[in-house]
Formats: sequence, C-alpha cells, structure tokens
Amino acid sequence: MERTANYCPRCGTPLENRLRYGRLRPVCSACGHTVFFDPKVAVVVFVVADDSVLLVKRANEPGKGLWALPAGFVDADEDPREAAAREAKEETGLSIEIDELLDVLHRPDKSGLADIVIAYSGRVTGGKLHAADDAEAAGWFARDELPEIGLATTALLIERWLNSAD
Amino acid sequence: MERTANYCPRCGTPLENRLRYGRLRPVCSACGHTVFFDPKVAVVVFVVADDSVLLVKRANEPGKGLWALPAGFVDADEDPREAAAREAKEETGLSIEIDELLDVLHRPDKSGLADIVIAYSGRVTGGKLHAADDAEAAGWFARDELPEIGLATTALLIERWLNSAD
Repeated sequence: MERTANYCPRCGTPLENRLRYGRLRPVCSACGHTVFFDPKVAVVVFVVADDSVLLVKRANEPGKGLWALPAGFVDADEDPREAAAREAKEETGLSIEIDELLDVLHRPDKSGLADIVIAYSGRVTGGKLHAADDAEAAGWFARDELPEIGLATTALLIERWLNSAD
Repeated sequence: MERTANYCPRCGTPLENRLRYGRLRPVCSACGHTVFFDPKVAVVVFVVADDSVLLVKRANEPGKGLWALPAGFVDADEDPREAAAREAKEETGLSIEIDELLDVLHRPDKSGLADIVIAYSGRVTGGKLHAADDAEAAGWFARDELPEIGLATTALLIERWLNSAD
C-alpha cells in the first residue's frame, strides 16, 4: 500500500525527505521526528472441514463480489493470532481456534491490500455460519466446486491445498 | 511500540479520535484521512553451524551490550525474507540464505522494539564474520557457552533450540 506523510504527525510541520537508516525517509525539521512506514499486516485463516474450505464473498474492493479466505488487517497492538480469530468470527459468525502458522507472504501491492500476510490454519469450535462485516456471503466449498477467487493470497493457499495429498 | 498522531500526515490538520472500524482512531476533520497504526515488524535470523548459534552484541538500546540474534525492522515495501538476509549481512558480514519460517511472535512492547517478530532459519553462504551497523561484536556460541541474552525473542528461540533434539 502506498503511504503519504506530508506533515509531521507529532507537531504538524511539513516534512522533508532525508537520509535516515539507509534510505530517504520523511523527517521533521522542527521536532526531529522521523516517519518510518511500517508494513500493513493482514491475517488470513484457512479452515477446512469435511474436505471443504471456508470462504467469504467480499463486500468491498479490492475483489468485491469475489471469494476469499476470511481475512483482515492487524492493528499495531493486536496479537496476529487473535486478530485472525476475530476476523473469521466477524465475517463468518463461526468461532475459530487458530492452529498452525502456515506461511508469511509478501504481497507488494498498491491497491489497498496488506504488504505482509500471515496465514494460519484454524478449525471451527462453535458459532453458526452467518456472513457479516466485510463479507456479503460465507460458505464451504469442496475442491471441485470452488467459486471465483478474488485475492492472490487466497488463490495461492488454495492452490497449495489442491496440490496437497490429503 | 507506542504511536503518536496529533496532526494529519496528509494535510497537517489536528486529528480527533473517532470510532472507525471498531475502535477509536485518529481522524482528520479537514480531509477525512484516518490514521491506522500498523504493527512495527521485525525479522530475526537463527543461524546454526557446527552446533553453534550466530549472535550479535547489540550496540543500541534496548539490550545494549547484551547479545541477540541478527535482527532488524522491515520497511513497508520490503520482503521480510530479504530484510532478514540484509540485516544479517549488515550486522555480521556474512551472506545468509534464508531457509525456513520458524515462527511469528507477538511482542507487545513499549520500549521501541517490534510488535510482530518474524523468525527465520538461515545458513551461511559466504562472507567473513565482521560486526557492523547495529552490532558491536558478532560470534558463534555453543549451547554451553551462551552469553547474556538481551531480547525476549532471542531468549525464546534459543530456549527452543536448547530443548530440541539435534
């Protein structure tokens, strides 16, 4: 995601690009504050039950109307595992217990998606399937009945699942 | 790490906290910009050779003068694997190939460290041991000759190594 820092978030003074820690970064000439652009981090949850994967139909761009894994942004103070369970619950109504770390994916992207995606596997521990929040639908899909996928990270993780033995 | 946003980074107007996406976030009343505080992300590299682990003596706080794994912050546009190799090279002089994703650790911390730490294993492919950048020394340490460790993530990963079979 592209970032903007024209003004110092601390004191409001216009920023200037200066060499700091190996690259040009926005620096405040008044208070000395340096702006470091941090990666936007998302979490996605891969839940399989009865050989079907849990997907949501995206209510927002990018990928609006297409299907993807339950996912969302991680706030600065959030535990990514808790964020993953929270997003899955918000979007699908299901309580999800996060199991394993599947991967960390780097997704350089300027369309508003995350820079780093942390993918977990999870399993349903309760709740009732009911799409909400960023999802306009939610459902389970077998390998041979997959809908049109809207996000590259979902496509990649599904491809791995299709190629896996089990 | 604690964050500050008093002024809109886009237009310089003082920000007000308003409810956005489930919590209070700094919002600009002039241009509508919402500030999302993203996690600060660090990478650490666990390199073992001849049953010794590669550590660096930290030149800066926190943990100044103590030992830790080669590590550093990931910039918004960086691939975390490349960031891990870059940091290891800068701090130890060694060329490191990143192997496996070991873990993603959440480290709520207000002392200036990262919020999320991505840990990789790696191995030496070239270079000559020579501390630089954020490291005032670098060296290999056997399990029974470990120095005083300065960071919690390093301590955790070393504990796992000590408890592992190999």
